[in-house]
Amino acid sequence: MKIALSQLNYHIGNFEKNNQKIIDTIQKAKTAGAELIVFAELAISGYPAKDLLRNSAFLKQCYQSIESIAQHCQGIACIIGAPVPNQDGEGKLLYNAALLIEDGEVKNICKKSLLPDYDVFDEYRYFEPNPHVSCINFKGKTIALTICEDLWDDDGPNSYVGDIMLELAKENPDLIINIAASPFSYTHFDSRKNVLMRNVIKGSAPLIYVNQIGAQTDIIFDGRSLALNKKAEVILELKAFEEDLQYVELQNNDLSSSSTYQPVKTSEISLIHNALILGLKDYFQKSGFKTAVLGLSGGLDSALVAALACEALGSENVLSILMPSIYSTDHSLKDALDLVENTGCQHKIIPIKDIASAFEGSLAETFAGKEQDTTEENIQARTRGTLLMAISNKFGNILLNTSNKSEAAVGYGTLYGDMAGSLSVIGDVYKTQAYELAKYINREREIIPINTIVKPPSAELRPDQKDSDSLPDYDILDSILFQLIEMEKSREDVINLGFDEALVNRVNNLLCNAEFKRFQAPPILRVSPKAFGPGRSMPLVAKYSF
Amino acid sequence: MKIALSQLNYHIGNFEKNNQKIIDTIQKAKTAGAELIVFAELAISGYPAKDLLRNSAFLKQCYQSIESIAQHCQGIACIIGAPVPNQDGEGKLLYNAALLIEDGEVKNICKKSLLPDYDVFDEYRYFEPNPHVSCINFKGKTIALTICEDLWDDDGPNSYVGDIMLELAKENPDLIINIAASPFSYTHFDSRKNVLMRNVIKGSAPLIYVNQIGAQTDIIFDGRSLALNKKAEVILELKAFEEDLQYVELQNNDLSSSSTYQPVKTSEISLIHNALILGLKDYFQKSGFKTAVLGLSGGLDSALVAALACEALGSENVLSILMPSIYSTDHSLKDALDLVENTGCQHKIIPIKDIASAFEGSLAETFAGKEQDTTEENIQARTRGTLLMAISNKFGNILLNTSNKSEAAVGYGTLYGDMAGSLSVIGDVYKTQAYELAKYINREREIIPINTIVKPPSAELRPDQKDSDSLPDYDILDSILFQLIEMEKSREDVINLGFDEALVNRVNNLLCNAEFKRFQAPPILRVSPKAFGPGRSMPLVAKYSF
Repeated sequence: MKIALSQLNYHIGNFEKNNQKIIDTIQKAKTAGAELIVFAELAISGYPAKDLLRNSAFLKQCYQSIESIAQHCQGIACIIGAPVPNQDGEGKLLYNAALLIEDGEVKNICKKSLLPDYDVFDEYRYFEPNPHVSCINFKGKTIALTICEDLWDDDGPNSYVGDIMLELAKENPDLIINIAASPFSYTHFDSRKNVLMRNVIKGSAPLIYVNQIGAQTDIIFDGRSLALNKKAEVILELKAFEEDLQYVELQNNDLSSSSTYQPVKTSEISLIHNALILGLKDYFQKSGFKTAVLGLSGGLDSALVAALACEALGSENVLSILMPSIYSTDHSLKDALDLVENTGCQHKIIPIKDIASAFEGSLAETFAGKEQDTTEENIQARTRGTLLMAISNKFGNILLNTSNKSEAAVGYGTLYGDMAGSLSVIGDVYKTQAYELAKYINREREIIPINTIVKPPSAELRPDQKDSDSLPDYDILDSILFQLIEMEKSREDVINLGFDEALVNRVNNLLCNAEFKRFQAPPILRVSPKAFGPGRSMPLVAKYSF
Repeated sequence: MKIALSQLNYHIGNFEKNNQKIIDTIQKAKTAGAELIVFAELAISGYPAKDLLRNSAFLKQCYQSIESIAQHCQGIACIIGAPVPNQDGEGKLLYNAALLIEDGEVKNICKKSLLPDYDVFDEYRYFEPNPHVSCINFKGKTIALTICEDLWDDDGPNSYVGDIMLELAKENPDLIINIAASPFSYTHFDSRKNVLMRNVIKGSAPLIYVNQIGAQTDIIFDGRSLALNKKAEVILELKAFEEDLQYVELQNNDLSSSSTYQPVKTSEISLIHNALILGLKDYFQKSGFKTAVLGLSGGLDSALVAALACEALGSENVLSILMPSIYSTDHSLKDALDLVENTGCQHKIIPIKDIASAFEGSLAETFAGKEQDTTEENIQARTRGTLLMAISNKFGNILLNTSNKSEAAVGYGTLYGDMAGSLSVIGDVYKTQAYELAKYINREREIIPINTIVKPPSAELRPDQKDSDSLPDYDILDSILFQLIEMEKSREDVINLGFDEALVNRVNNLLCNAEFKRFQAPPILRVSPKAFGPGRSMPLVAKYSF
């Protein structure tokens, strides 16, 4: 039995486009002789559709899509993810389901049991968990059909449903299929592969795993769908960050692939790079925009975002605005212009001196007798934010935010100033990772000027300012932040790891005190296991001294 | 048996202050001869503590607080809400629990079964649901001890645990106690009362209900704790939006109160008013700030926020900034100055002409050949936002946002301009409600100038601009928005209610297209059943044409 793994990029709510793509792929697989084609979790609606799942018209279109896709399942069956109504009259209105469609009809519905509700996930908000799992039958084969989290029982089985795969294994399945919407993070692929291997062993059956690809605002799906044989060996891996369609054969009670599997060698930084490129591409394509604008300072972060945007959108679609102030150094302007030349993006130079003076003049009376402080630095940052937004408004291009994760963490940024933008490109990339990313981008030729990489980082908002005046070395800062954020350690835990107590306390205070700023930050392309944004939900008005 | 209902205002993470308050209240109730005192849900941690519940040091302080409070439970028992560890090794790490503390020890732990995860709630993120409920015994009395949502089975019982009260009723309880953290909305009190009445009937026992009061950033708890006798009659209602301590007697198998219950007569608008006042007060007090700044235009919304802030914080702590432009009318400045005089708040006048000119001058070359459009309007709004933030930065006062819900809904506001601020005071108040609120504030004397109320609303960002140039009448607009937002109807549903199809489509498009703006809005004081913010989670990059 030939089975197709169909890894597609869906657009939430764009039923016409998604359906056409699904139907075209079904035809292609049928032509290739496949008897079954497998699509990802919630392919019908896109993931995460959030509160659109509470909109009756949205759900109606989901159900209509299932019907129209079913008409094309003749001579080939399909397994596809969709929300289905809970008709039991108890609990949530929907199930997160996998449908088996055959001969133009939905023949079987498997409902998700383990609903993730950590990090960026909130499936209990919409779906009722399914307490009873059982295998389905397709052409005489027993299939353990599961949905994403169903196979993740790392924290011990959920008390409600028990261990899904052990339950399904009782029926001696011939094949395990898992359809997923599993977002990328730079640590996730290996744990995902290990989970699938464990399930092959628990279920004593080969396994097909189909993931989505594509970015949905902040969340990026990496694809890398897999097939594992009965020995828990990977026999097939689909492309990362690209649509793909591949086939396996189910015969002699095992899966095989016509090509020999070669594990893909990828570095963490290349994966982050590719994720950000897809994140940028899809944000623009799915929101119907073509062109971007950003402020280019001569520093590392904006250079990095400009380079990424040029790669994702084409340099002709990227407009860099250089906005020197009286504190900008000559080399900054030169470094920024070098980047413009290296990438070929558009640029404008708009000095901010006159506007900043106008602000200070208008505020002179109000501020009489007060010392200069960060207020004046923030005025410069907000002047730049306002100029960039004016250009965005006038030309209809999207403002890209250029803050990195280290600054976002400690609040080293100005709300409505350098924190402005529709999308934060590197807001989940620590400064130390930003350097690696710059080197990766320069792997073949110098795109980001070497001077931008080697000079000490500075906001250039007052004379001779350096980041190191107010922040510890990024190596140490990022290590502490990683423990506090990604590892979710308490202040105490991090001190116990051996970091300097006073420094940990200071960093933790900065982190907590910047919650109110990050609440108003743009959506951030997520590449780590814990990004700022909806996946890290903190109270704003609280005491954080514990 | 005398039982105390203790309705307190907690501060998330401020263990020292919360514990002291709880212990003081235990002493007071003991002195008054109470044998049992009942506190609210998650009183120990504050609600919602969000991802602080994943911080080991935070949880350690919760557990230490329980121990130190227990030492004061001698000669009086207490029932109090706290997170407790799930020691079963399966599922989530915590339960949301009600503890019975007696003779200095935790004698019983009841765990919450129904975990809310709609609107602003996300309890499945942190807590394991409890599948087995049973009554507890206190001094020979059988008590059905439940936590908030446990009594809310409106959508039919959860399939996991069944109907909690019917289950508990099998043990013939003498008393039902429900501890809650139930946020205010202007529609909520009546449904809450009805739910409690239904549970008295189901459980055949009188009921004590203890809620929190106080605002936690956006969410406002209204208190109004209740006692109901066996006939499901309310016999006691605690204060709205204030701390309170009251007593009931459990005797002859029923509850009684020493005073005769007089239902409190309150109008919807007075409740909204009081909620906003508490929301403002607590935001400042709990974040350690005293003074506010806001932009005062002469229009209704900023006048309303100024008046509310003066009432909540004292007019000496409110600084109003008047920032006229070349499009501001004379009457606007006069109306704003009248408001300043009526409230007694501080004010400054800072014209924006020079700054706006500096922006336009600096952008002249870039914008050469382009028509004036909303870009120039946005520059004015962002100039004001930058001035206000500069004053906030320089003087350490908090910028209050003055946008109303109607504008926030249709995107009639400028990101980083009039959408700036740390807290949105009336972002959950429709324009039509804002008029009512202004009249309510003027109930005794003219605080908001009559001219501000009667003149046609205008953003005054271009000559002779009126809101009605680009928006339908607020009566109609707000009715459509209410159906789309609060009632969560689809576009189609609203048209079927009889609204004009083209208008509904236009309003729905405006609503959907402004999702990206609202993503970056400040936290909004929630007074409706569906506020913008975390309680309404929408994808940003999606197609909304269904």
